[in-house]
Amino acid sequence: MRALLASMAIATLAVPALADPLPSWTDGDAKSRIIEFVEAVTTQGGDDYVIADDRIAVFDNDGTLWAEQPVYFQALYALDRLKEKAKADPSILTSDTLKAAAAGDMKGAMAGGEKGLLEILDVSHSGSSVEDFKADVRDWLANTRHPTTGRAYTDMTYQPMLELLTYLRDEGFSTYIVSGGGIRFIRAFAEKAYGIPPQQVVGSAGKLSYKVVDGNPAVMMDGQIAFVDDKEGKPVGIDTHIGKRPIFAAGNSDGDFQMLEYTMAGDGPRFGMLVHHTDADREFAYDRKGHVGVLSKGLDEAEQRGWLLVDMAKDWRRVWSSAE
Amino acid sequence: MRALLASMAIATLAVPALADPLPSWTDGDAKSRIIEFVEAVTTQGGDDYVIADDRIAVFDNDGTLWAEQPVYFQALYALDRLKEKAKADPSILTSDTLKAAAAGDMKGAMAGGEKGLLEILDVSHSGSSVEDFKADVRDWLANTRHPTTGRAYTDMTYQPMLELLTYLRDEGFSTYIVSGGGIRFIRAFAEKAYGIPPQQVVGSAGKLSYKVVDGNPAVMMDGQIAFVDDKEGKPVGIDTHIGKRPIFAAGNSDGDFQMLEYTMAGDGPRFGMLVHHTDADREFAYDRKGHVGVLSKGLDEAEQRGWLLVDMAKDWRRVWSSAE
Repeated sequence: MRALLASMAIATLAVPALADPLPSWTDGDAKSRIIEFVEAVTTQGGDDYVIADDRIAVFDNDGTLWAEQPVYFQALYALDRLKEKAKADPSILTSDTLKAAAAGDMKGAMAGGEKGLLEILDVSHSGSSVEDFKADVRDWLANTRHPTTGRAYTDMTYQPMLELLTYLRDEGFSTYIVSGGGIRFIRAFAEKAYGIPPQQVVGSAGKLSYKVVDGNPAVMMDGQIAFVDDKEGKPVGIDTHIGKRPIFAAGNSDGDFQMLEYTMAGDGPRFGMLVHHTDADREFAYDRKGHVGVLSKGLDEAEQRGWLLVDMAKDWRRVWSSAE
Repeated sequence: MRALLASMAIATLAVPALADPLPSWTDGDAKSRIIEFVEAVTTQGGDDYVIADDRIAVFDNDGTLWAEQPVYFQALYALDRLKEKAKADPSILTSDTLKAAAAGDMKGAMAGGEKGLLEILDVSHSGSSVEDFKADVRDWLANTRHPTTGRAYTDMTYQPMLELLTYLRDEGFSTYIVSGGGIRFIRAFAEKAYGIPPQQVVGSAGKLSYKVVDGNPAVMMDGQIAFVDDKEGKPVGIDTHIGKRPIFAAGNSDGDFQMLEYTMAGDGPRFGMLVHHTDADREFAYDRKGHVGVLSKGLDEAEQRGWLLVDMAKDWRRVWSSAE
């Protein structure tokens, strides 16, 4: 009898734990809306049922799955690599932007805006095979810490979003990253950090070429920008890599606007969400202003368009995937 | 006892059937080599074991999974669409190649070589959304027959190759198409014909743009050529869409040479095969000459490189997926 009572107690305790796929989300509107949507599209026989093959969920990366302040982490990688390359060959610093970047003058490097950033990416990311590049990014991520939090970058992924990814996959969704960041940079860590394999990462890319160097066939990164997977580029990247319109899209900036607009315009049930960075204590607070992750149009239109606006301070019990 | 004997007889009969994953392949070297490779990479604890995530298999489409004579089927689609478009608006016929094509003069249309073919593809494939295009291709495939065999094009897929795709998937491989043909053309039928979903189709592509037309957000096909997934383009397409080097590659022409070279150069066990079109009776016989599916370098080097050369006449019991 005591054993029976004990097992009943365990069962009773176990039910709420099993029933909550999103423990790091506070109990409120945001969490309820996500769960209601997932239950609707996975309930066989229901009006909103969607077959598993069509349960495509797309996620922005910077500011949506991991942090993006004080600047995109890939830009910090680019600066480090540029410095190293310039040591070996200073002649690569052919502009004021590149000189400032190699000297560690972040303000000077950022003064060139998006064009300057692309120049830095071009020079820092070119010249190696895709396989060597991936190894180098992994090495950098393992040995570099964030300038203000002191954390490893891969410890600055968001626990509530990791739970959301897992929850969706458990419910038969395929989860993709669709990022303005570099496709090969993200692929270097996405499988370990998010459980998302390389073929489910969509991102910006430089030019590539196939070369046989000393008898070794390799795909080489030639620099320059071939595709920008941001704004209007996101639906284009989605069609190119996935070939289907998603039914779930999550972002955090106006760079994700078109991805959400495109996703929500399909037939049947759809879900769009924007993570609003409202938490200066635990993370960073920003939206309409700045040079990274600007959210303005999305903030104005989310409610009328039926997109969930996630209030990080209010909706998330916990922010980081690593211990706080 | 009779029931027992009967069930034993069934078991005895059933074993060879279950044990042969490639019934349309004759018992010989080609079939043995394929099965030996698959068993080697899937035997846990063996020296050649490969985890399922890395069991990536890539297949050319035209001439490898379905026929490509007298010309790529997509070119026949392009001619039909060009004729229709020109009826509505003759001003689109701005060159001799386009005029010949719209008049059904195949020789005149092909006189422009690859450049002429790209011009025809450009004009015939542009102006619709990716979703409308896919629907149009499906409609064409359902209602058009091959000029000499009278078969539906999707009945001209190769039964031995369908068995190979299924066998590999049953053994934990992910199967991809990597084709010089159009990515959105192939996606229109690949799932039904081959069990390969859109996100596992890599191919050539025109330019795309995201537009909101009358309130409907859509990805539009703008024509021109943005990426040619042939020759050196195949390893580039593989890295862009899959992000991993395959361990198995199958093709039939010199357009597949670099894909096989790239695949075979990775560490660990690898398998490369070329389908040699040797069967004038059941299919078509061609290799070093012609304007479609030229196989010359591959024919010269297959043996020394350890690539399997499949002799269609000798190695395949049956050719077409539909009844002969």
